[in-house]
Order: sequence, then C-alpha cells, then structure tokens
Amino acid sequence: MVNDTQEWNELARQLCVDSIRCSTAAESGHPTSSMSAAHLMAVLFSKHLRYDVDDPTSQANDRFVLSKGHASPVLYSTLKAIGAISDQELLSFRRFGSPLQGHPAPVPEMPWIDVATGSLGQGLPVGLGMALAMRLDALPSRVWVLMGDSEAVEGAVWEAMANASFNGARNLIAILDMNRLGQRGPTMLGWDGPAYAERASAFGWRALEIDGHDVSEIDRAFTEASDGLGPTFIVARTVKGWGVSLLADQEGWHGKALDEDQARQAIQELGGERSITITPSKPKPRPMEATRGLDYDLPTYEDAMATRKAFGEALGAMAVGDLDLVVLDGEVSNSTYTEDFQKATPDRFFEMYIGEQDMLGAAVGLQALGKKPFAATFGAFLTRGYDFIRMAAVSRASIRLCGSHAGVSIGEDGPSQMALEDIAMMRAVLGSTVLYPADGNATAKLVAQMASLEGISFVRTTREKTPKLYGPDEEFPIGGSKVVRTTGDGDRAALVAAGVTLFEALKAADTLAADGIPVRVIDTYSVKPIDQETLRDALRETGLLVVAEDHWIEGGIGDAVLEALASGGAVLAGQVVKLGVTRMPGSGSPEELRDWAGISADKIARTVRAQLRK
Amino acid sequence: MVNDTQEWNELARQLCVDSIRCSTAAESGHPTSSMSAAHLMAVLFSKHLRYDVDDPTSQANDRFVLSKGHASPVLYSTLKAIGAISDQELLSFRRFGSPLQGHPAPVPEMPWIDVATGSLGQGLPVGLGMALAMRLDALPSRVWVLMGDSEAVEGAVWEAMANASFNGARNLIAILDMNRLGQRGPTMLGWDGPAYAERASAFGWRALEIDGHDVSEIDRAFTEASDGLGPTFIVARTVKGWGVSLLADQEGWHGKALDEDQARQAIQELGGERSITITPSKPKPRPMEATRGLDYDLPTYEDAMATRKAFGEALGAMAVGDLDLVVLDGEVSNSTYTEDFQKATPDRFFEMYIGEQDMLGAAVGLQALGKKPFAATFGAFLTRGYDFIRMAAVSRASIRLCGSHAGVSIGEDGPSQMALEDIAMMRAVLGSTVLYPADGNATAKLVAQMASLEGISFVRTTREKTPKLYGPDEEFPIGGSKVVRTTGDGDRAALVAAGVTLFEALKAADTLAADGIPVRVIDTYSVKPIDQETLRDALRETGLLVVAEDHWIEGGIGDAVLEALASGGAVLAGQVVKLGVTRMPGSGSPEELRDWAGISADKIARTVRAQLRK
Repeated sequence: MVNDTQEWNELARQLCVDSIRCSTAAESGHPTSSMSAAHLMAVLFSKHLRYDVDDPTSQANDRFVLSKGHASPVLYSTLKAIGAISDQELLSFRRFGSPLQGHPAPVPEMPWIDVATGSLGQGLPVGLGMALAMRLDALPSRVWVLMGDSEAVEGAVWEAMANASFNGARNLIAILDMNRLGQRGPTMLGWDGPAYAERASAFGWRALEIDGHDVSEIDRAFTEASDGLGPTFIVARTVKGWGVSLLADQEGWHGKALDEDQARQAIQELGGERSITITPSKPKPRPMEATRGLDYDLPTYEDAMATRKAFGEALGAMAVGDLDLVVLDGEVSNSTYTEDFQKATPDRFFEMYIGEQDMLGAAVGLQALGKKPFAATFGAFLTRGYDFIRMAAVSRASIRLCGSHAGVSIGEDGPSQMALEDIAMMRAVLGSTVLYPADGNATAKLVAQMASLEGISFVRTTREKTPKLYGPDEEFPIGGSKVVRTTGDGDRAALVAAGVTLFEALKAADTLAADGIPVRVIDTYSVKPIDQETLRDALRETGLLVVAEDHWIEGGIGDAVLEALASGGAVLAGQVVKLGVTRMPGSGSPEELRDWAGISADKIARTVRAQLRK
Repeated sequence: MVNDTQEWNELARQLCVDSIRCSTAAESGHPTSSMSAAHLMAVLFSKHLRYDVDDPTSQANDRFVLSKGHASPVLYSTLKAIGAISDQELLSFRRFGSPLQGHPAPVPEMPWIDVATGSLGQGLPVGLGMALAMRLDALPSRVWVLMGDSEAVEGAVWEAMANASFNGARNLIAILDMNRLGQRGPTMLGWDGPAYAERASAFGWRALEIDGHDVSEIDRAFTEASDGLGPTFIVARTVKGWGVSLLADQEGWHGKALDEDQARQAIQELGGERSITITPSKPKPRPMEATRGLDYDLPTYEDAMATRKAFGEALGAMAVGDLDLVVLDGEVSNSTYTEDFQKATPDRFFEMYIGEQDMLGAAVGLQALGKKPFAATFGAFLTRGYDFIRMAAVSRASIRLCGSHAGVSIGEDGPSQMALEDIAMMRAVLGSTVLYPADGNATAKLVAQMASLEGISFVRTTREKTPKLYGPDEEFPIGGSKVVRTTGDGDRAALVAAGVTLFEALKAADTLAADGIPVRVIDTYSVKPIDQETLRDALRETGLLVVAEDHWIEGGIGDAVLEALASGGAVLAGQVVKLGVTRMPGSGSPEELRDWAGISADKIARTVRAQLRK
C-alpha cells in the first residue's frame, strides 16, 4: 500500500505516459480519456482497492469496473503498475491476438477484468449486481465503478442509481471522471459538478465533489466512500488529456493516438517514463463456505399448465437445492411467476422494478461473483436490454433469461406486450441457447438444465395454459427435439413447431390424418442449438416441412430450420414453408389471433393440402 | 371549454365508470390504473388541451401521450366524452378487430392516437420529439405526457428528462400519476412526492406537487405548466382505483377487470352512469407554410469512400432540398458523419448525447408531427433502443436509422463496438427495410430513397473506405440487387455479399477465375426486401450459393437468402453455404479480422473450391 502524495502523483504521471505509449504504438486508442483518470486510478489501486493481484477471482477482493471502457489504456497501464502484465504486453495493445483489446474484455489471459465494457452506461448496473452478490455472501468488500461524464446521460445509469439506493447498496462507489469533453465536443453539463451531485443526491446517494487531480482530495473521498454508509457518488473534476499542453482540455483529441513526435514531446512534458510498481492492499482472507448441493424435486404436471407457471415453480423447487441461484425480475413477478422463487427464498430474489437494463446488468455482475442468475420479464421487454445481452456475451457471462408472454397468443393486451422478435434477437447472440418448451414437464426439465448452462440462455414461456404432452420422466436434452407424431415412411409432410404452435400442429395432424394425409410432427423445443439430424431426416423422408411459429416470420424457428438444413453445405432438396406473423396484430383472443396470423391448426392443415396439391 | 369544478368532478366520475364498464365488458384491462388518472384527464381535456377533435392530426393541436398505455380505458372513456367515439365503440374494447386495443395504437380508425404506448417509459422521449417538432415550426402548442409512477424507474425517462431541460423544451409537460402501486405491489418511492419532485428539479425541470384528485389544484398546476417556462413535471398524488371502496389503494387489483356484480356496485358507488360531453378548446388556426421542395444534387464519388461518410454527405446535400428532414445523433456525429447534415442545417439537427433510447423515441415524436427523421449511431448501440424500434413499428411510424461501424471490419476497437446482430434485429421488425450499400454512390442513392420510405428503414454503413464500384448514374431500387460479375451460363457458383464482403467476394471471384472456375457475384444491397428472383436464378443456374457477411451467422444476409429461396413453398435444390462470424472477435486490423472470421476473399475462394470438390 502506498500512502504518499508525492508517489501518487508520480504514479499518475506514469499512467499518463504509459497510456500514451501503448496507444501510440497501436496507432489508435483513447489516451486523453485515460489521462483524466490517472490520479483517480493511482490513488485507488495504491491504497483503497483491496485486491490480490495473484488471485484476481478471489471472492474476497474488491471489484473495479471501468465503465468508460474506451479509457482502457489507463487500466492496462495500471495492470502493469500492479505487476499483472509486463511492459511488453502493454505495448501489444489493440494488436490482433492480444488480450489487451481496444475496450476491456475478460478473455482468459485477462483474469483481472471481470466484465466487458465499451458500450457506455453499463458499468454501474453491473457494479450494482456485484454489490448485491457481496451482500448475499456477507463480504466486507466494495465495488468501485469508474464512469465517464458522457455516459451519465444513459438511462441505464439512472436505473442503477435508483435501485442502488433503494436496495441500500452501501458498498457501491461510483467515481465520475468529469473531464467535460465527449467524443465530438462538450458534454451536456460540462464541469457543472454541483448539477451531477444534485442528481445523485436526489437519487438517494451520498454525493462528494473533488478535484480529480488532487491526490489528497481523492484519498479523503475514497476513505469516506469506504465507510459503508454509501452508495457514494464521487464527482471528480478532471482535465481530459491532463498534463500535456497539446492535449489538456482540448477538443478534437477524443479517441486519437499521438504520433511518435507528439508522444515523445508529451512524455517529456510528463517527466519521462517511470517504472513504479505498487501492490494493492490485500483483502482479508475469509474462508468461504462451500455451496452445499441439496437435493430438490422438480415439479411434475399431470394437467394443463402455463409454461410460465411451470418456469416459476421449477425455480421455486430449485431454490432450496442450489444456493448459488439468484433470480431478478422487472416488476412482473406475478406474471413471469418468479414470485414462486421469491416465496421460497426471498433473500436471493431481487426486485429490479421496471428497469430491464439494470436487471440484466446486475445479472452480469452477480454471475461475475459466482452466482447463477435467472432474469425474467415479458419477452417483449427483453428487447429493452438487448445491448446488455450483447455485452454479456462479450463478457463471457453465464446468465439465464426468461421471456414470458410470447407471441400473438397473449391475446387482448395487444402488440406492445407481444414478444414477436425475441427468438431472432436471442439467436443472434454468440453461443446462446434458445429454448421454447410446449408443456409444464418440458419446461421444468429445461429450466433445471439452464442452471448449469454456460453463456447466455433463454427460455420462452407462454401466457395461457397448454395441455400436458409429456410425462414427468421424459428427458429434454439441449439440442434435441421430439418427434411427437409419425407413421414412419408414410408421412407426407412434417410439421415443425414449438411452444404454443405445437398444439396447433398436432390438431392439424389429426385433421390431415382423418383426410388420409399422415404427417409427422416435430417439437423443436431447442431452437438453438437445433436438432439438424431430425429435421434433415424429415425433409428427406417427406419432402415438405411446414414450420409454424408465433413470432415474426424473420429470424425465428423457420430461419433456424432453414439454417439447419443448409448447414455444412448440405444439398437442399424439398420444400420448406414458413408460417409466422406477417401483419401487425391487434387485440383479440389467442385463438382468434392465431387464426388471423395463419398459424392455427386450420391454417397449417390448409398449407399442407395446398402444397401437396401443387 | 369547461371551467367548473363541479362539472370536472362529475366528468372524472364518468371516466371512472366508463373505464369500469369497458373493461368489465372485455373481461380484462386496467380499470384501477385508469381511475387514478380520471380527474387529471377530466381537467386536461375540458380546459387545457387545445385540440380540434374533428381535425386530430392538425399541426396546430396540442398533443397528448398516454405513456402509461395500460390505462387505455381512461383514454377511450375520454375520447367518448369529447365525441370522438361512441359508447358502442367504447364497449368493443379489446375485442378482435376493434381499434380500441388493450394498449393504445394509432390504427387508421384511431386518428386521435399519435403513437403506440404500452412498453413503459417511452412516452416522455416521444413527447420530447413532439416538442422539438413544435419548436422547429414555431408552433405555440404544448405536449402533455401522462406517466405512471412505476415507469419512472425506466432509464429512458431520465434520458428524456436530461435532454428536455438541456434543449429548453419549455412546452413539454409531464404529469406523474403517483398512485403508489405497481403491478405486483408498492412502487419504489410510494407516495413520496417530494422525492420525485427533487429528482425532476435536479434534472432541470420545474416541479409541481398536487393532489391528483383535487380539480382546482390540477387546474392551477396545468395553468402554470402552460406558461411556456417549462419543461414542467407535475407530481400528482393519486389513488389507484379511486372512488370505489373495493379497489381504492388496494393491492391485487392491477390489470384486473371487475366482474359484473362488482362493476354494478362500483358504478353505483360512483353515482351511476353519466353522459357528459365536452369540447376541448380549439387551437388557434395557424396557416402552415407548405414545405418547399428544393432541388438538390446528391454527392457522387469517383474514388474510394467510406459508406458512412457518403451517408453523411448525402444527408448534407438533401438538407437543402427537403425541409422536413431532421437528423438525430447519439453523440457520435463525427463518426456517423451526421455532422455533415448539422453543418448544412444546424437547426434541424438534434444532438441527443449518449441516450439512444431517447434519440429513437424523439424520432418517433418528430415523425408524428410530419417530420422525416434520420437517427444515427454505431450499429452496435442501436441494440440499446430495440424496444423503441419495436414500438415504433407498432406506432406505424416512419423513421430512418443508420448504424455505422458494422462488423469485425471496424478493427482495433474490439467487439463492444462491432455491430454483429444489427441485421438480425432490424429484419425482425414488421415492414422494415434493411439496406447495406457497398460503395459511396450506392449509399447516396439509397439514403435519398430512404427519405420517402414508409415504416422503419435502416442503412448499415462501414467504417473503412471501400473502392468505388458503381457509377454515379447507377440506380439502386429497394428490393433489387446487382449481378456485378457473371459469365452467364458458365458460372459454377454464385457469391452473395453486401457491403464490405462484396469486395472480398470480388477478389475471390478473381482468384477462382484465374483457376478456371468462373463464379457469379451478387450484391444484395437490399437485404430486406431481398431480390428473390436473382437469387433463385443463381441457385438454379449454378447449384451453389456462398453467402459471406460481416455479421453473426444467425439472422443476417445468409438467413435472408435462405428465406428468399424457400419463400412461397418453392422447391429447394442446390447448396447454400453461409459464411459469417461464429467466434467472439478481439482487436486487430480489418483484414486480419475478416480472415480470422472466415469471410475474407481467401476463405470464400477456399469454400467454393471445397464445395465443388465434394
């Protein structure tokens, strides 16, 4: 631990110099946005952050999130100063294959980075999740989030501000690097520190204002912020490009590296290169109790059941069996049925109110500290947080999402509440798993598997009750499917469906069978990964697939089926008809709307007949 | 105009009664959320809203946005009171085919509704856009947004709060229906009116606190709010389910209709049915100047040019020719190049800072008043506003989006800044147009067409310069494509690409041609609608399509191509290989990353050779 203003100032200059060096070597990057934060980083890592550099994933550590991810040079320069990376590694910044990416990402070689940043306004929601995880585990550690001032406009910041004070996240510390300049010019509030402080206070935070280049003021503020009486919002007035006359408080220098001559002069003005190393204060070691694995019994169903309710009941059952499970909801827990988990274990349920971005960011923060979060809202409202889901994938996070109220089948509430793009959105997330169970038993089995899935997984649930289709002992492997009806070689077409349209497909199959047209029915409960083999067999054996889904025609199950058939350059031979929603729905009953949309049993059967007549 | 407290109170009771009547008839809906707002609506529509019921789209009208869209019964009941709809129509609420949807939507039969609501927290951003449009046209009208208290957590609200005060939107009035209860229980702040007022003040608004059931207080607040010294935030303390002892301030009544007995008793308690009609104050008629159509010359290019720069220059050229054009940007105008429009016509450029949701909501508000908005940011950050784009489609809005910095081709900045899901996201919007030009001339032609497109249109632009491919006189019809290389019948494969991969495909075609393998190259600059015929011809004539795109493998051009081939139940015959991004990228040069992702010329050529060898 360093506790010396002279040394802090020297270290800050080193961080400025190294930020310039690595970005000039890369010929790109954000040196000036780094330099405004140099003193804040120097004091934080020298004294206040409790952090074991050799054990960066230790539960006992404080956490640091660089929400203004473009200032990655100052983070990497700090990692060098604490001995995590070498100078040579620092100079690989932004090169192909280097773990020192343009914006921080937790690649395997970078265990000192917990989450990816670079999409602004996400650090505070993530930090809130971390703070909640610490509280759950009764850890005395703190979360420090370094924010830019431009990103303070992002609404997600204010969702986290409201939630953090409401939830009493006393160990959460936001540091605002108020350098006055955004990418293309001055920020909205410039250097109006009192305005930021007033907003933070109004949102229930303790607000402190300091000179962000005065290490003594920084030290005092960080000391106060660590007293456990937060959340604390520190407004630090800083200078973008601090310490170099060419850059300091100048417009036109955002995201620009200095050329070699400029860098040489700048480094000289900063007093040249230094090689200070520091060791952060170690956290107090704290024996962690191993998570006990308890047995639990999944619910089983003998009657009709809404899959959304089965989702909630499965979570409720799992609550006692997996003590790492946590559940977040966006103020609709009596619709998604996460309330069943809340009833079972209220301390591990987080009501995030109507702030979906904050809910998803907090889920990423919670998993960074070893929790297994499920987050649920209406599928339509998950679109509110798509950027957070995208960034969760960049963070290599494992989070589990539930989107209820899928499709036109919600009925009377109308299109604003209907998830019709959720499958498209979730398929286009790297490494995601997309599940869409049809009945209660399938739902319970899939939700249980989600708990141990890596990456971003998603289950789509249905508002209305659906009949029991599967026995309680049926297994539903990820990537599998179920052929729920077939006459074998005699099938003249295959109906492909999942969730609510599976029952329409089964009714269509009944009608067609009565007319002497035997058809196969396939339940693609696993939309991604999808069961290529079963689909290919079906096309080869029947020549006609009809896919019916309660989703826009683009990006959903139909596209997933076509992708599976074409995959690997396989020769396509046959017909694939996609049925989905192609007009804007209104209100109505589920049955009326499915028929209107052309995905009812009647419309599916008609499609098969029309194709076979061709 | 009614200016009588007795009559206002009677009207408020009528609105409560009618809200109960229509929701009980529908057996669903939100009567209690309507009743808390009854007095606010009664006073607003009786006296303060300047509104010509017979000419609801008149530019001179004030605008009303029901941000808490679930309270649609009170809106429809008010529309009945002002003579817009009949009692019979009111009682069609939530029925199949009725324009009185569960949440308000501007279907053709409902000209009194400007925008769809129901996804919470969107009304204020939309209202801000309306207020900005009024200012542009020097109109004396006002925008009234009725918000729920639950939705005050949504970050988008605070983006609009920050932007409205910064932009001096003095004619914007937010009314907070603080009824204390959300869907599943108490809100975060309950009846803490001072807390809401403090937040609003901190964000630069004039805040007023009133009793939301005292018509005199409401009248005084609305009078003050109309003085042009806003924006004004009125915190109205209300009672959910006001006026009925069974419902008033009770939990468990959100989104529930009363049964017939309960309704009868409630209506009796409210004093029975009434048939008050009112006529809102007419706006002052104001002759609008017809928009002059001026000539403009699109830019043309003879050399390499980044399509993002061509986008900006095209907008800059169009600025003088189309006076309805407005442009919004998310603080990256020097990256998207909307700064070229700003330079040409600064008054019609809106800097929305880093608040993408607010930017998109404001675009919807601007178009509701006849403007033609373009909104631009990095394609990756449009994901931040997917819910707003989805709701814009429900609003039947015409907005034009640009997402710059597409794909791994942005290079060193890394994955947080790379748009890799934007095509998937934008395809899954009803009626959307998705464009992806390869060179400067194509970009200019497509951007010019976007100005007159209906619905949601999107152009994807590239960070780096791309060579000139097309002459300045080439036309690019929406839904078309270009066969940029072919030997006719001799082609052994067709390469399908758009944007930056088109140049990789052309290089691959050169290599393959040198090896004696002639291939066709197709530019699908219009990804949606896509040119089915050209793609089907290519598959029929060559038997092999290789699609290469700088996008996740799911949901992008490859899926659009497969959909086109399968469409209408066409018989599939041949091979389609999709090349796209299937691993998480890091930093690197564009060339390194394209090759790593398998979408470089070399990888495309290899794929063709491997398929032909099979």
